[in-house]
Amino acid sequence: MSERRQGRDDGEGQGLNARIVATGADLLRGLAGEKPSLFQRDRWVGRIMDWSLGNAEFRTRLLRFVDVFPALSTSRALSHHLKEYFGDMGGPAPGPLRWAMGAASGPLAAPFLAKVIRYSIEKLGQQFIIGDTSERAMKSLSRIRSEGCAFSLDILGEAVVSEDEAEAYAGQYAVLIRDLRGAEGKWPALAGGGESRDALDWGYAPAISISLKPSSLHSQIRPQNFEGSVEAVLRRLRPLYEQLIEARGAMCIDMESYAYKGISLGVYKALRKEYPGYRDLSIAMQAYLRDTGADVEDLLAWSEKHGLPVGIRLVKGAYWDYEVVRARQNGWVIPVYTEKAETDAAFERLARLVLEHHDTAYLAAGTHNIRSIAAVLELAAQAHTPSDRYEFQVLYGMAEPVRRVLLDRVGRVRLYCPCGPIVPGMAYLVRRLLENTANQSFLRLMFSEGTDAGDLLRDPAEAVEKARDPQASTARKARALAAPPSSDLPPFENQPPADFTREEERDRFREALARVRQKLGRTYPLFINGEDRATEETEASTNPADPSEVIGWVCQARRIEADEAIAAASSAFERWRNTDASTRASYLLKAAGHLRARRFELAAWQVLEIGKQWDQASADVAEAIDFLEYYAREMERLGSPRLLPSPPGERNYSLYEARGVAVVIAPWNFPLAISCGMVSAAIVTGNCVVYKPSPLTPIIGRHLVEAFSDALLPAGVFNYVPGRTGEIAEYLIDHEAVSTIAFTGSTDVGLRIIEKAASTRQGQFQVKRVICEMGGKNAIIIDEDADLDEAVPGVLVSAFGFQGQKCSSCSRVIVVGAIYDVFVERLMGAAKSLALGPAEDPAFALGPVADDRARSRILSYIEVGDKEGRVLFQGEAPEGRNYVPVTILGDIEIGHRVAQEEIFGPVLAVMRAATFEEALDKANATRFALTGGVFSRSPDHLEAARRSFRVGNLYLNRHITGALVGRQPFGGFKLSGLGTKAGGAEYLLHFMDPRVVTENIARKGFVPEADLEDPC
Amino acid sequence: MSERRQGRDDGEGQGLNARIVATGADLLRGLAGEKPSLFQRDRWVGRIMDWSLGNAEFRTRLLRFVDVFPALSTSRALSHHLKEYFGDMGGPAPGPLRWAMGAASGPLAAPFLAKVIRYSIEKLGQQFIIGDTSERAMKSLSRIRSEGCAFSLDILGEAVVSEDEAEAYAGQYAVLIRDLRGAEGKWPALAGGGESRDALDWGYAPAISISLKPSSLHSQIRPQNFEGSVEAVLRRLRPLYEQLIEARGAMCIDMESYAYKGISLGVYKALRKEYPGYRDLSIAMQAYLRDTGADVEDLLAWSEKHGLPVGIRLVKGAYWDYEVVRARQNGWVIPVYTEKAETDAAFERLARLVLEHHDTAYLAAGTHNIRSIAAVLELAAQAHTPSDRYEFQVLYGMAEPVRRVLLDRVGRVRLYCPCGPIVPGMAYLVRRLLENTANQSFLRLMFSEGTDAGDLLRDPAEAVEKARDPQASTARKARALAAPPSSDLPPFENQPPADFTREEERDRFREALARVRQKLGRTYPLFINGEDRATEETEASTNPADPSEVIGWVCQARRIEADEAIAAASSAFERWRNTDASTRASYLLKAAGHLRARRFELAAWQVLEIGKQWDQASADVAEAIDFLEYYAREMERLGSPRLLPSPPGERNYSLYEARGVAVVIAPWNFPLAISCGMVSAAIVTGNCVVYKPSPLTPIIGRHLVEAFSDALLPAGVFNYVPGRTGEIAEYLIDHEAVSTIAFTGSTDVGLRIIEKAASTRQGQFQVKRVICEMGGKNAIIIDEDADLDEAVPGVLVSAFGFQGQKCSSCSRVIVVGAIYDVFVERLMGAAKSLALGPAEDPAFALGPVADDRARSRILSYIEVGDKEGRVLFQGEAPEGRNYVPVTILGDIEIGHRVAQEEIFGPVLAVMRAATFEEALDKANATRFALTGGVFSRSPDHLEAARRSFRVGNLYLNRHITGALVGRQPFGGFKLSGLGTKAGGAEYLLHFMDPRVVTENIARKGFVPEADLEDPC
Repeated sequence: MSERRQGRDDGEGQGLNARIVATGADLLRGLAGEKPSLFQRDRWVGRIMDWSLGNAEFRTRLLRFVDVFPALSTSRALSHHLKEYFGDMGGPAPGPLRWAMGAASGPLAAPFLAKVIRYSIEKLGQQFIIGDTSERAMKSLSRIRSEGCAFSLDILGEAVVSEDEAEAYAGQYAVLIRDLRGAEGKWPALAGGGESRDALDWGYAPAISISLKPSSLHSQIRPQNFEGSVEAVLRRLRPLYEQLIEARGAMCIDMESYAYKGISLGVYKALRKEYPGYRDLSIAMQAYLRDTGADVEDLLAWSEKHGLPVGIRLVKGAYWDYEVVRARQNGWVIPVYTEKAETDAAFERLARLVLEHHDTAYLAAGTHNIRSIAAVLELAAQAHTPSDRYEFQVLYGMAEPVRRVLLDRVGRVRLYCPCGPIVPGMAYLVRRLLENTANQSFLRLMFSEGTDAGDLLRDPAEAVEKARDPQASTARKARALAAPPSSDLPPFENQPPADFTREEERDRFREALARVRQKLGRTYPLFINGEDRATEETEASTNPADPSEVIGWVCQARRIEADEAIAAASSAFERWRNTDASTRASYLLKAAGHLRARRFELAAWQVLEIGKQWDQASADVAEAIDFLEYYAREMERLGSPRLLPSPPGERNYSLYEARGVAVVIAPWNFPLAISCGMVSAAIVTGNCVVYKPSPLTPIIGRHLVEAFSDALLPAGVFNYVPGRTGEIAEYLIDHEAVSTIAFTGSTDVGLRIIEKAASTRQGQFQVKRVICEMGGKNAIIIDEDADLDEAVPGVLVSAFGFQGQKCSSCSRVIVVGAIYDVFVERLMGAAKSLALGPAEDPAFALGPVADDRARSRILSYIEVGDKEGRVLFQGEAPEGRNYVPVTILGDIEIGHRVAQEEIFGPVLAVMRAATFEEALDKANATRFALTGGVFSRSPDHLEAARRSFRVGNLYLNRHITGALVGRQPFGGFKLSGLGTKAGGAEYLLHFMDPRVVTENIARKGFVPEADLEDPC
Repeated sequence: MSERRQGRDDGEGQGLNARIVATGADLLRGLAGEKPSLFQRDRWVGRIMDWSLGNAEFRTRLLRFVDVFPALSTSRALSHHLKEYFGDMGGPAPGPLRWAMGAASGPLAAPFLAKVIRYSIEKLGQQFIIGDTSERAMKSLSRIRSEGCAFSLDILGEAVVSEDEAEAYAGQYAVLIRDLRGAEGKWPALAGGGESRDALDWGYAPAISISLKPSSLHSQIRPQNFEGSVEAVLRRLRPLYEQLIEARGAMCIDMESYAYKGISLGVYKALRKEYPGYRDLSIAMQAYLRDTGADVEDLLAWSEKHGLPVGIRLVKGAYWDYEVVRARQNGWVIPVYTEKAETDAAFERLARLVLEHHDTAYLAAGTHNIRSIAAVLELAAQAHTPSDRYEFQVLYGMAEPVRRVLLDRVGRVRLYCPCGPIVPGMAYLVRRLLENTANQSFLRLMFSEGTDAGDLLRDPAEAVEKARDPQASTARKARALAAPPSSDLPPFENQPPADFTREEERDRFREALARVRQKLGRTYPLFINGEDRATEETEASTNPADPSEVIGWVCQARRIEADEAIAAASSAFERWRNTDASTRASYLLKAAGHLRARRFELAAWQVLEIGKQWDQASADVAEAIDFLEYYAREMERLGSPRLLPSPPGERNYSLYEARGVAVVIAPWNFPLAISCGMVSAAIVTGNCVVYKPSPLTPIIGRHLVEAFSDALLPAGVFNYVPGRTGEIAEYLIDHEAVSTIAFTGSTDVGLRIIEKAASTRQGQFQVKRVICEMGGKNAIIIDEDADLDEAVPGVLVSAFGFQGQKCSSCSRVIVVGAIYDVFVERLMGAAKSLALGPAEDPAFALGPVADDRARSRILSYIEVGDKEGRVLFQGEAPEGRNYVPVTILGDIEIGHRVAQEEIFGPVLAVMRAATFEEALDKANATRFALTGGVFSRSPDHLEAARRSFRVGNLYLNRHITGALVGRQPFGGFKLSGLGTKAGGAEYLLHFMDPRVVTENIARKGFVPEADLEDPC
């Protein structure tokens, strides 16, 4: 983004700013004495708002209560939640709340209380929403227009989780446009546009105007499928747009979260190009995004190049919390400005840019900030922008005095008007409440805090300048997630996943796929004692999407090579164990660098060898990198002896040391990550490794050889012995020179390994240790008050992501009470929207399962499930390959096989529970304890789940797959595992033995002086 | 001690103090310009001293080098150590050291360097030691007397580790007294005593005077055997005293460390009573002991009561470091004053007391402190003490100017004169160096720091008064060994072992034994689900010292009772697991209180049921208490969820939870401690326990039932099912409802349990976890430079304590190089001194082994060892019971069975190693890795051991048994265990499964404000 500091460098800035301040002061005088209803303390809403301004805890609870409120269908549920949300608030409570809490305690009053609260919240909603029905909306619009304001109408909606829902949403707009056409006849044009119904507002603007979110028109938007997503949105948008053109209406493409920005711009440009003659199409741009400067410049250039005038609704942006959280959670650069002043300054900069291009661009300035408004007015004047090339927009219900003063002074004011039932509109309502109660909200500062005019009108660029402190960059340190490490390494941070919203990342992935395709069909030797070792026998590794396609030929280890590998590991052990822990860690860091440099290619191999989708494959590589980086740091921490409690004259230290030869037997479903995790843990702790990859992913496994060779790991420390048969694995497990076995895979195989390894033979010098991650039968509980907009996609991704082939996958969903029907219906609709096809093509949500054996097993389970219960839903699947249709089973009881046995495929059993407690019981009632999830907005139920949902990894209000190293140490117990936690602070200990060294440091009764300090 | 503040309350104090200060100032003037040779920087010794005064690190290294020096028999060893001790000293080094370090680098110079250093250290020694031979000593004494001083002669000696050595030491005194008689003829009496050889010094004092340490006259002094120890010392002391009486000489009983105080006083009183007519017997009393006030009063009263005048040598005390360290290590009250001023004030108080009793008591004031000397003079004047009722004593070589001024002003000065070869005298030398370089040494202050007279002469009582700050007591907090706990509990401190130097503790133990004897022969039921459960079949538990004596009859569990116990545990589990962690911990604390209140009785049971000696049994009970207290605190720590790294909008917590029913199978050798450790760990973590005690100690095990019942532990949480056969244990291990098995015992049984538990059956919901401590074949390495005074007792207690029946016992000693012969000889002598008999009688060092089977096994190993190598030494053992003679095997090689198999009895194999590296290899060359030890004073070798002596618990320069909870988390690996560490911070984790709970705390993109702070 070019940061042109227009108007400042040429000395004109001071004059301009003075004019802006003067105009702002003038506007402020026009407002004097008025307050928006939200800030009027004599009104109910104003009192609640006032209280939440002063009490952050109450504000949080209130917002959460408002959020859950629509899901509270009974008065009992309502009074329960009221108690849970506010029952333990410390300090004084506002009067209405005190009253409500009192009422909630009397059971007789519950229905009455419910009515009062519903009424109050609806009141609150009506503040911002013009009507819950089209009829009521038309009435409000008439009133608005009669008051002299234009409008842009937006339909509030629940999140679109399926194509059916997207279709329905589009249908609502069609109805709305029809109704608007009907109503338009009664609306005279606004000032300057003549009186007849054909006349345009202000002489140029259509009276009918709608705003629309692209994400509501397609449920399968995936950044990696950029072109496909744009096209899918357009498919539904075109008919609406044509209908609107017929009605001579205007449309604005709303800008949503950053993830959709590219797609929204893509949709806008495509539509603009397809209908070049129709100019009333605009797009919202958000000033708080760091990208927006470049985006606006790009759009203006595009407009000029193609001769297509554009309309830009310039807003500040309403997803700030969300963007910050999402970026921080993914380790991406934060896309928004983090200082309010930066956004305000950007707004002025961008407004100026658009106003200066008034020949091709029309500006709708969406802001309630008087300084920003004054800036737009003065910038327009300076740029000689004609008055028919810009307007102001404010939100309905938000800042009536601002709207009035704009109407008085400027005239061209459009209200952004959401309509629709309050319940699905809650998300919007919460966002508005948030905006109004944010610390830096201009309205709050102006109307509630009474900030003085000088401060309100100060040039935001000034504040930005001040904040540009060279020391500010060190703040980065503070945001490190991990505790400060003992070494010089920077704190651990997760490898950010590929961000496919970025074109360059999509391009790199495509190129990597092409590169890998050129390498297919090669032969891969074993790797023993630092050298390649070919064998005669080879096996083909094939593409699950096309089993006739050979990815490569892999040499097969026999007993003799297994012996060689163990001998190599054994003889390397003594030196490796004695190698300094930091040095060992440094090899991991080098290997991490290798993987990072090749992360697109490594992901591409997974797409082809095991059928992982782009994002899933990228996440696997990122996790492999995480393991290396995390365990390297953990070893730095554990590598130095730790002082234990020691009285004077005595020094007690604890330390850890390697056990010997570790055999690593890896699965195919996280072919790089889990292999890398087990191998790197064994290596960094000082063990030497014999690694047997899964026969389905030996080539991905082979890349670990490259990574460690590249890191110059000493010969013999890491040995690679692929083999198709179980025989080699058993031989390794039984070998008397093996001290540790790390395994991840099925429970059957795991239990067999545990049993075999426990037999200590003559000549063995150690009891073998098994580190073992096994299967799961993971459940998600959908509570009655769950947010289905989040629960449905959460279950979907948990159950069907990578075809359900994760040990963490959800295979049971337990639905509490009355929400069952609506949940299952939305879930089925969502499942139906998932397309199956080769993972190479990002258009497909799902791909093939691992191999033919897996397919047969899963299909037979579906048959069993259909007998035990019934198939509620089955999707479509391409014929003749390893595809299994997405399947949802209903009427499943806890005793059924499909509720007890791990299926490891895209099959989900739905179960009912009358109460949350029953759901917990059912969730716990298997032999497994790996992952689990709960969607609930009841604090009590969440607490009960924390306590009693007994699984290794429990997730509250999110999907249950995708545990991240460091943040969600992963692993289960019961028959899911031995209680180890991969990617956690205790994991490395399993690969070592603890030692304690006690030294008597007294000599002839004499100890160093410091030891005797404070002897009392 | 009555703290009579004599002379202060009656207003006389100010006058007295003024007189003392005036006299002191006068004495100081007499000293002006003079310096003791130690502080003369133009002398070699003075320079080294000067350097060590300014550099604490150098001082420490120098003292340690002086300590190891006598053991450096070759010039190669000497130059090696020189490099190791001083090679890496940072900063400037004193000239001589720089020169020596340079010389040490040239191999040719080594022999020359050795000579120089030996010469220098001998020079240093000669400063304090009057002669290495009797002949030279007599010469020095003649010189001393010719200078006008009297003397008291003391023979320096190595520690007495055997009766042979004690005998030899007594023999040296006999020779010395003979030689003194011979020399006395040439010595005229000192001033005031006339000229003839029959005349007494100063008219009343014999010229011949010796000082003598009781501990040198008996190798088996044990506080619990108080009367026996006093009598044993007297047996060797009487003939010497009679010889001295014949020579008309005087004797002073030296006071050594606090542990011997009671015995020294006992010896003094006994001897004084036996020879009432001979008055020239005195005893040293140490002003730094808090007890000494009471002791002196008691002695004066005793003297008056029996009409036996006494002589008191009042000193300040020379074992301050040692006393503080020993008390801190044992958790006992520190017996010495911790402020120097307190000691100085006590000295004046005590001197006054003796001087006032001049009719029956004679005072020898041993001090170099001018203030103290002045005080004695003025107190004597005030008490009108005749000049023939007190004298002054100073140490030979320490403070020549003080001696001179005393001689000038007072006349009656006696030098305390050590004699003997420098090598065994090193301990004395180190103590003297220490004294002279201590921060608060009066000599240092006066001669080196140049402190002014006002400060030097200040009344110490004044400083004491000032220090009595009420806040001083909070300093206690700072000395807590453990990290601050998360709960309100005070930090963990080990239960102090019984202190048998205290008469009341000896009495309580004797009473407890008598009480237990009255309870013998009772019948003990099982304990299931909170109730006693009798069975028909009972088995006798007997006294190993007398197998015909039945300790009690114990009901035997069959399968039906095992099932009941498991059912009880299973049904109690759900509630117990859900019980708050702090509440669970509180039961342990209550049980600890119960054990603490009954600790003497519980120890007494062990004496009778399994043959533990008093101290061993007390330590076992203390350890049981430690486990309860420590695990309670650990659970408090682990009981709260721990926040993991969490980005905004996400909360990750890790927590732990119980696994289910735990079976605890306990050994007999630590019958209460190990049982209690395993049981309490299982219980506090939320598991329910089925406990099977060893069939040899079921009654001790039954006391856990009482402890937990007393604590009101809920029914079913702890169940007690004794049984003699292995069948019950196997049944419990195989049971499908069992989730965890904690076992401590032999490797054979342990491996069998591991194997059985690893088989997961149909219907089992968990993989069983085994927590397993097994055997050892522990070695101690004796390096060539080892301090044998410490190594011999260290090996002795490690190998033969409790008859070698500890998994931590030393069963191999590996001796490096040339030290072999002298080590083995001293070791055999020490072993020969150990008497075997019933543990009830504290006169015996060792007792019977556990039972007849154990005896047969051990005896057959001795046979094997005699064939593989040869029996070097075999002690005597009572016939016909479970006694096994202490046996030392020689010529043992690493391949021998007795070097590889656990014997578990009082049998020690001695092996040779040419180098330290070879010793390490041999130490590691077994299938076990439990404990190990090294006696070495080579920093490099100690470091090599830390790195490569691969055992669970390694001890440097101390015995290898007696690991303490918290300080030495205990347990081994290889075939010694699974790498768990009882009494360590990770132990409880083995009884739990880890869980991670991840919560998405964002709702509609909104997170609480605090979560977004510093988003950059």
